[in-house]
Amino acid sequence: MAAKIVDLRSDTVTKPTEAMRGAMASAEVEDDVLDRDPSCFRLETELAKLLGKEAALFVPSGTMANLISVLVHCDTRGSEVILGHDSHIHIYENGGIAILGGVHPRTVKNNEDGTMDIDLIEAAIRDPKRELIYPTTRLICLENTHGNCGGRCLSVEYTDRVGEVAKKHGLKLHIDGARIFNAAVALGVPVDRLVQAADSVSVCLSKGLGAPVGSVIVGSSSFISKARRLRKTLGGGMRQVGVLCAAALVALQENVEKLENDHKKAKLLADGLNGIKGLRVDTSSVETNMIYVEIEEGLGTTASKLCKDLEEYGILVMAMASSRLRIVLHHQISANDVHYALSCFQQAVDGVPNENGK
Amino acid sequence: MAAKIVDLRSDTVTKPTEAMRGAMASAEVEDDVLDRDPSCFRLETELAKLLGKEAALFVPSGTMANLISVLVHCDTRGSEVILGHDSHIHIYENGGIAILGGVHPRTVKNNEDGTMDIDLIEAAIRDPKRELIYPTTRLICLENTHGNCGGRCLSVEYTDRVGEVAKKHGLKLHIDGARIFNAAVALGVPVDRLVQAADSVSVCLSKGLGAPVGSVIVGSSSFISKARRLRKTLGGGMRQVGVLCAAALVALQENVEKLENDHKKAKLLADGLNGIKGLRVDTSSVETNMIYVEIEEGLGTTASKLCKDLEEYGILVMAMASSRLRIVLHHQISANDVHYALSCFQQAVDGVPNENGK
Amino acid sequence: MAAKIVDLRSDTVTKPTEAMRGAMASAEVEDDVLDRDPSCFRLETELAKLLGKEAALFVPSGTMANLISVLVHCDTRGSEVILGHDSHIHIYENGGIAILGGVHPRTVKNNEDGTMDIDLIEAAIRDPKRELIYPTTRLICLENTHGNCGGRCLSVEYTDRVGEVAKKHGLKLHIDGARIFNAAVALGVPVDRLVQAADSVSVCLSKGLGAPVGSVIVGSSSFISKARRLRKTLGGGMRQVGVLCAAALVALQENVEKLENDHKKAKLLADGLNGIKGLRVDTSSVETNMIYVEIEEGLGTTASKLCKDLEEYGILVMAMASSRLRIVLHHQISANDVHYALSCFQQAVDGVPNENGK
Amino acid sequence: MAAKIVDLRSDTVTKPTEAMRGAMASAEVEDDVLDRDPSCFRLETELAKLLGKEAALFVPSGTMANLISVLVHCDTRGSEVILGHDSHIHIYENGGIAILGGVHPRTVKNNEDGTMDIDLIEAAIRDPKRELIYPTTRLICLENTHGNCGGRCLSVEYTDRVGEVAKKHGLKLHIDGARIFNAAVALGVPVDRLVQAADSVSVCLSKGLGAPVGSVIVGSSSFISKARRLRKTLGGGMRQVGVLCAAALVALQENVEKLENDHKKAKLLADGLNGIKGLRVDTSSVETNMIYVEIEEGLGTTASKLCKDLEEYGILVMAMASSRLRIVLHHQISANDVHYALSCFQQAVDGVPNENGK
Repeated sequence: MAAKIVDLRSDTVTKPTEAMRGAMASAEVEDDVLDRDPSCFRLETELAKLLGKEAALFVPSGTMANLISVLVHCDTRGSEVILGHDSHIHIYENGGIAILGGVHPRTVKNNEDGTMDIDLIEAAIRDPKRELIYPTTRLICLENTHGNCGGRCLSVEYTDRVGEVAKKHGLKLHIDGARIFNAAVALGVPVDRLVQAADSVSVCLSKGLGAPVGSVIVGSSSFISKARRLRKTLGGGMRQVGVLCAAALVALQENVEKLENDHKKAKLLADGLNGIKGLRVDTSSVETNMIYVEIEEGLGTTASKLCKDLEEYGILVMAMASSRLRIVLHHQISANDVHYALSCFQQAVDGVPNENGK
Repeated sequence: MAAKIVDLRSDTVTKPTEAMRGAMASAEVEDDVLDRDPSCFRLETELAKLLGKEAALFVPSGTMANLISVLVHCDTRGSEVILGHDSHIHIYENGGIAILGGVHPRTVKNNEDGTMDIDLIEAAIRDPKRELIYPTTRLICLENTHGNCGGRCLSVEYTDRVGEVAKKHGLKLHIDGARIFNAAVALGVPVDRLVQAADSVSVCLSKGLGAPVGSVIVGSSSFISKARRLRKTLGGGMRQVGVLCAAALVALQENVEKLENDHKKAKLLADGLNGIKGLRVDTSSVETNMIYVEIEEGLGTTASKLCKDLEEYGILVMAMASSRLRIVLHHQISANDVHYALSCFQQAVDGVPNENGK
Repeated sequence: MAAKIVDLRSDTVTKPTEAMRGAMASAEVEDDVLDRDPSCFRLETELAKLLGKEAALFVPSGTMANLISVLVHCDTRGSEVILGHDSHIHIYENGGIAILGGVHPRTVKNNEDGTMDIDLIEAAIRDPKRELIYPTTRLICLENTHGNCGGRCLSVEYTDRVGEVAKKHGLKLHIDGARIFNAAVALGVPVDRLVQAADSVSVCLSKGLGAPVGSVIVGSSSFISKARRLRKTLGGGMRQVGVLCAAALVALQENVEKLENDHKKAKLLADGLNGIKGLRVDTSSVETNMIYVEIEEGLGTTASKLCKDLEEYGILVMAMASSRLRIVLHHQISANDVHYALSCFQQAVDGVPNENGK
Repeated sequence: MAAKIVDLRSDTVTKPTEAMRGAMASAEVEDDVLDRDPSCFRLETELAKLLGKEAALFVPSGTMANLISVLVHCDTRGSEVILGHDSHIHIYENGGIAILGGVHPRTVKNNEDGTMDIDLIEAAIRDPKRELIYPTTRLICLENTHGNCGGRCLSVEYTDRVGEVAKKHGLKLHIDGARIFNAAVALGVPVDRLVQAADSVSVCLSKGLGAPVGSVIVGSSSFISKARRLRKTLGGGMRQVGVLCAAALVALQENVEKLENDHKKAKLLADGLNGIKGLRVDTSSVETNMIYVEIEEGLGTTASKLCKDLEEYGILVMAMASSRLRIVLHHQISANDVHYALSCFQQAVDGVPNENGK
């Protein structure tokens, strides 16, 4: 094991801060299933307000947040959802919307920036007059920032336009906003404005925000009331859950403002990596805290091999494809860590034997 | 109403022939749920043999044939199927595999000829090592001939290659062979050879073959045994169903050999249509009994408008998109009908007022 | 094999009559999926009128009729249906409503006469105020006549009372009326009056009515419109289905009036069987065409053994439990057959070696 | 609001102790989805060992624990589970096993002591030879202690016998052991012996054991591996979940031994309540920490009215039916609280105006 570990695999790896640990230790709690847990209520109220929606619901994970959102919007048998072919819901959530919820996914190509062409979205909407052979389109899902597209941001304008398409066709719009605060910070817009067109948004508290556990769904009161029930059905209703919510409240206060810094560190690291011979980063696409690194053929290594080599130096990154690495910054990565990581990358690429590791 | 109707919307519109009607009237029947209906058993045996599989099952429709096939191959919760983005199962079957069966579809782009690139298929197969976040790929579906791709044929070579990919990854291969006999005839290969790589094939009896009702699934004995049970669950088990099967047996004898003629008529019609100013047919893509007609912008009409105009002349065709018509030939369309249809198209395009209609 | 076969296993075993075969041979047909098949439309119209509902839909089987009915009434995720613990839907339809439709069944004890106590039904309805932990009750199902309760009839009064409970709680009422004509005839009430309280009724055409294939669902126009779509999803949409419907129209004309006779033959046979030492029939419970025979312990045989013995004589009956046989009469069993069956039962019970068989 | 609150509604209402809060504040944590959280791993290892099974999995709730267990045992489409008609899974978990999992429930009557008659269980198992019309029985569920049956215990002998039936028919046995430690303590048997016959057990940490959040499933390694994946699909995979598990580890150490005391307090309270005129408790049935109080008709009040009256005194109990109250003891109810509660009950029943409340 290396002397020092710099874990750049995901922003889910952060540890709770002292303040969060203190908050957990002193959290005011009740049985959130029988009554309402006060710390949970506070968190839900806070997030509903921040996101500009009527109500909110705390859930154990981003996967459950999206699953509930899609299933509540698609609560009638025979529903179809339009979503990006490379979206988190479609690729990384076990197909739960179909497997547990019987919702039929219809994918539209994600562009490199995470958008889907508006006309392709509109073309994917099923004609209700042909419902004898078609499922009923009920929902469009966006993802902002878009993970598989390098953490890039969907703009207010784009989101609004998709919202108009949804409204025009009587559809709902859900935003997988696991990293919506990163998007708002990067775009320099208030987060409530960014999701104004959405009927529901899922927000992850344990990614960039650094809370130990949990996501929140926001939407209308009636939507959240259905979501609460489905959360119980899925087994996501928890008892004295305020211990987690208290930590999440600290996360909101402590870390939203640090996201900008994460983005700066990401750009710094991206620039550095792009300067290493054999690696290539489209630095202009590094808009938030995520970096995709292409390994050039000439380097003679693969993503998973390079991953392993870096592990020797204590640098943890993720192989996403045979020649593609993913790096994610977060508030527990310092500027020094970035420099250290860069030097380790350089050494690993140079094939210099690891001297401070193992 | 026009004096003469030439129904080119689909090959599902054929009427049972006198021989079929006679067969229904004299069919030997039993309760196929309690025992086995002898006419049904004869049909299933015949088709299993023709398609080179162990066993067969008669079902009420092509939709049920595909639904059962996908669900039997994907009988474990958490299954994913790879299929063409423009395949009949994905587009025209109400999303039943997800909505009723909880199977997650993963689409691969269909090329114009109905194929999906082999490497894209392979890339779509989920890595079982990441099953924590991925569904399990269990099945690949092909469609031959491919309806939305103009009735084009998948070759033996292509099918075999997909079969090899499936085998390599421990997957099953299902062929939606609603019009597999059209493909075999057009390719000049024995139909059993064409589907040799498939674990299951659905075959429609009420399309080009002209039977009034029904499809058949073929596969291994154990597959068909599971299919029989699922057919009962879906409500597809029928009692004295031999009346339908007797007609289908006649269809097999009478009409397989007529398919070649349907293809010739399709080419004839395609050539003629392509000669009409304002219409365009990629005649080289007319491989079987289906024609897609593009309406050129200069013509100043839409597919649905032209459809309505043609209806005045008794020519029924289907509008598939704003500037695209579909035409399907079948054994009850004569060479004269083709010529008549061509002249009506010409008149409709010319905007000549309909004089023999209404 | 015995010289003569008297098949008393079910009323599903009837063969189409000459008139039905003639009707199939000459049926006016169209593609019922693309357009509407005229013979099918006639049958649907006729049954809607007979049952006193707005609309009707032909489906391949009674299982599909019930499956569609339950799923359309329970089209929202989280639905529960109240039904008899010994009802056909719960016991003999593969659990399809849960397995394909995700509907949660809640059973109430069936009394011997097929009823469920009204207060038990009402107690089983979920309190909507506790929806956080409860599914939503949406439907009550009755079965008339009730197969597993000896083919006994639910009265107009009982049905109306259940209908009132349903209405009071905002629920729908579905009647599995596979043998509803038997009930109406036995009770001496018009069939439309008998199902007046129901929102939907499934009626089997291939049981007592003797058609080769098919059931019909009746209900409101909007219900049937949803049912038509779900039928397509399940794969129950058939093309030139008029060939089956034409036979069913004949069945309606020929056989409704014969049901009374079936019931008389059932009573005759029940009385005779009850007179055989070692067998016991509660003759007062034989209200329609079904007889349950208890084998007394003293006889020293089991239902399945006696079943096999009777098969030697050509008498086919069904073993329902270790000491219980089921017998069903239908229009193709003559009074002579009844007498013959009785003498065979006597011989089988006497252990007389079978001399006219094998 | 009353000066003092004694919350007897459920054992889920306990607050984390100081030790638990300390443990949360100092918990060693990692991302349990990417890697394995060490505190979670410790808890899972501890519980697997305690329950005598190979492996364990931490989940957010008892509902998810049961849902996952049933769905993993029933992972093939067409599965049926046998469970008590009054079991928690059937009554209080939103019907999730059918609604999300498509598993068909088949209920057997719960006796007053929570058992189901062994012969009724066996009779409910579907004959695999009739699978054409039957779902496949795959699982039997027991509940120990049985909540709706007054928290009564299933004995080792009974559990073993059900296990034998399961084994004989190739079925799995799941125990909803939300309060299995209460049962083991009350019966005076090691908990691993009590669940020896089970293939899986769900254990609640936030009921009598007093942890803030969570349940654990135990079973074979391969079962838990499938459970882990399904947990992810449901959205129950959490990140730095060690903060919850650290509290649960404390709960295990602190509170298992206190359960016996809870049972004593329950008996004390039950005896007292039974001595109040107008209330009736079957004290012999109070085996663990749960009391069902019947309100005699002569008292002239209802359960929900009495509930409200008691609330004025700060005594919280639950109305389960029109004349039935549920009371649950836990480690944060002192002997003094019991005496206080008794006096409040007496006053409420006497109609004495509440003087220390409101």
